[in-house]
Amino acid sequence: MPVPLDNSSVLLIPGPVSLPLSTRLTMLEDHAAREREMVEGLRYVRRYLVKLANAEGIGTAIPLPGSATYANEAMIRTFVPKTGKLLLHTNGGFGEWLVEMCVSMGVPHVALRTPPTRPPSIEQFREALRSNPDVTHVIVVHVETSSGLLNPIRDIADLCYEQGKALLIDAVASFGVLELDMRRLRYQALTLSSNKCLEGPPGLGWVVANAAALEECKGNARSLSLDLWEQNRVMEQTGFFRFTPPIHAVRGTIKAVETHEAEGGTKARLRRYRTNWWRLVSDMRRLGFETLLADDDAAPILATFHDPADANFDIGILADEMAAKGIIIFPGRLAVPNTFRIGCIGAIEEATIRRAVKMIAETLARMGVQRFGRSATFSTGELPQAFDILDHFGRARASR
Amino acid sequence: MPVPLDNSSVLLIPGPVSLPLSTRLTMLEDHAAREREMVEGLRYVRRYLVKLANAEGIGTAIPLPGSATYANEAMIRTFVPKTGKLLLHTNGGFGEWLVEMCVSMGVPHVALRTPPTRPPSIEQFREALRSNPDVTHVIVVHVETSSGLLNPIRDIADLCYEQGKALLIDAVASFGVLELDMRRLRYQALTLSSNKCLEGPPGLGWVVANAAALEECKGNARSLSLDLWEQNRVMEQTGFFRFTPPIHAVRGTIKAVETHEAEGGTKARLRRYRTNWWRLVSDMRRLGFETLLADDDAAPILATFHDPADANFDIGILADEMAAKGIIIFPGRLAVPNTFRIGCIGAIEEATIRRAVKMIAETLARMGVQRFGRSATFSTGELPQAFDILDHFGRARASR
Repeated sequence: MPVPLDNSSVLLIPGPVSLPLSTRLTMLEDHAAREREMVEGLRYVRRYLVKLANAEGIGTAIPLPGSATYANEAMIRTFVPKTGKLLLHTNGGFGEWLVEMCVSMGVPHVALRTPPTRPPSIEQFREALRSNPDVTHVIVVHVETSSGLLNPIRDIADLCYEQGKALLIDAVASFGVLELDMRRLRYQALTLSSNKCLEGPPGLGWVVANAAALEECKGNARSLSLDLWEQNRVMEQTGFFRFTPPIHAVRGTIKAVETHEAEGGTKARLRRYRTNWWRLVSDMRRLGFETLLADDDAAPILATFHDPADANFDIGILADEMAAKGIIIFPGRLAVPNTFRIGCIGAIEEATIRRAVKMIAETLARMGVQRFGRSATFSTGELPQAFDILDHFGRARASR
Repeated sequence: MPVPLDNSSVLLIPGPVSLPLSTRLTMLEDHAAREREMVEGLRYVRRYLVKLANAEGIGTAIPLPGSATYANEAMIRTFVPKTGKLLLHTNGGFGEWLVEMCVSMGVPHVALRTPPTRPPSIEQFREALRSNPDVTHVIVVHVETSSGLLNPIRDIADLCYEQGKALLIDAVASFGVLELDMRRLRYQALTLSSNKCLEGPPGLGWVVANAAALEECKGNARSLSLDLWEQNRVMEQTGFFRFTPPIHAVRGTIKAVETHEAEGGTKARLRRYRTNWWRLVSDMRRLGFETLLADDDAAPILATFHDPADANFDIGILADEMAAKGIIIFPGRLAVPNTFRIGCIGAIEEATIRRAVKMIAETLARMGVQRFGRSATFSTGELPQAFDILDHFGRARASR
């Protein structure tokens, strides 16, 4: 957890996440993008990300300044040619982003919408591909940050391979903590963030791509800024970015990746996050809270809880009172109505989670909340009518 | 100049620039994007940028995470409709970027290329518009960072108004130090960086737009990430970004803008940069160096010098030796062959410039350079044959 040396908040949200102080300290220094330390650091990060993807010899890691959403847009622009068609799976807010992205770009696509409360079956994918034989590419959100739902990437990858469809993965919420083996899953590309499970500063997205697949994508992007083919070419050739990079965020990312490696890589980080997640879920259950997802369907990134069935409960007040004491939880309801999320990723230890749940209990007691069980029920087999993601996306979508 | 408390380099390059330590210190803290301090800080920055543009009541300031190049692409995407056609003026590397951007996006355009060593005449613009009556928008790079050349924005703006053409300005190298009055120049939008003359961290671009003009641009962008209309709508409605912002860079930008205001705004910053620039140019001239541009044509952002006419001169060695002592200059030749650039913007005082030029003199003495006058001449009335921007853009363009 952040030491009391600074005024950082403890972030129990799925992004931005709390960073180790040692990572933040690297952002104190100004450097030019082409100083040896920067160029070598960047090369190290690229190699490490390729190694995490088990893509040595076949993959390349491409940094793209900006939000991870840019990386997703750049991946779709670069990998789906004009003649292509994308099958977009969505079971939450971030899947819906991808749909909206394709609409705005005019990329031919078909959306496969499944309930936000349980993983899709592979039969649903098979059926969608059967009904849309012109689909060339499939994109899947590995972990839906709006709920914590883990999508069955292995089965989807096997199906794509069997049917000869190219696979793209939004791994923004999972890379660095869940395995995403390029040789095993045979994806063309995935996106990640320097923030999230890598625990670096936000402001730098990444794409890990199969180099041979990328090579076919020259001229696809219809964009200068978001052209991964060109970004990769210049990076390979010069070791530099094409544009002035977010130098402090790059420095933070180099340190974050060193820290990931020193911790023991993906497996060690998964162990810590699982411990955090289990502490969160079990302590909240002890209070009486119920989770939205079955444990087997949840990634250890965050947990989504049903609102307590108590008229005194107000998620806005709870979040405000905790923020005043330095712990940030999200007041937004992203996946389904009458639920709220608590994140457990970042430079967070089990003790922080204990402290947070204790604070929740105390705050709710002051608010007069006595019943912690779920307030509303809905059939988990159906998409709830009110798919309320207004808080996050600034737009009501209740009618879908 | 950066205090010796850290290992920052002193950056005498046109970006990234050296930041005040007080600005860098704000990046030590983690915060969520929706904490009150962040939301209020962002609102303050947006208001301040609108005020700097003399656009209160008619303008809006839109932050866009990523390199300033993204802001330029977003501005063109958002403001130039499918039915539009852009007249792109270019007299340097950053103008050429815009041409390449339009080619990649498929935006109808015509390029007006003028020599990199002096401002274009207004007659050249008039003639270009006469030959291309279907042009609807004009885009101009206010200060060409590849040379320091200042383009005559007032005359161009007047011509655009007279001819009923919409004006877009790449003000990345000038905003915050040169006046860009929306009421006087009647531009639809301009781009800037949180870095450069604002002296904030790189990683956040901005567009200051005429709100009425922006309102006409709904649905133009053909992009989710780079849609300024949508970014502005959500920002106005919620005070938040649509995607996880580069939180540390946002914090740095808030502090940088406070610092800009405390220094005395655009006029005071111009005074300091002019002092730096004049110290740089006159001390270098005392050594025997010659500038590429006439003083009246140069913006006080950087100076471009001719290589000395001495076989012992090597810009790479000079840059390396200075870097080893903590002062970074650019080894790249961006505008014309046989020249090099030294920047004078950022948290830099006159004393730093004196120290740098002294270091240059000492280093060149050690290298055995004795003749500091220009090594090669070319007619300043013509575009040099070899427009060598390979170092920066990773691609030779000698044949143009």
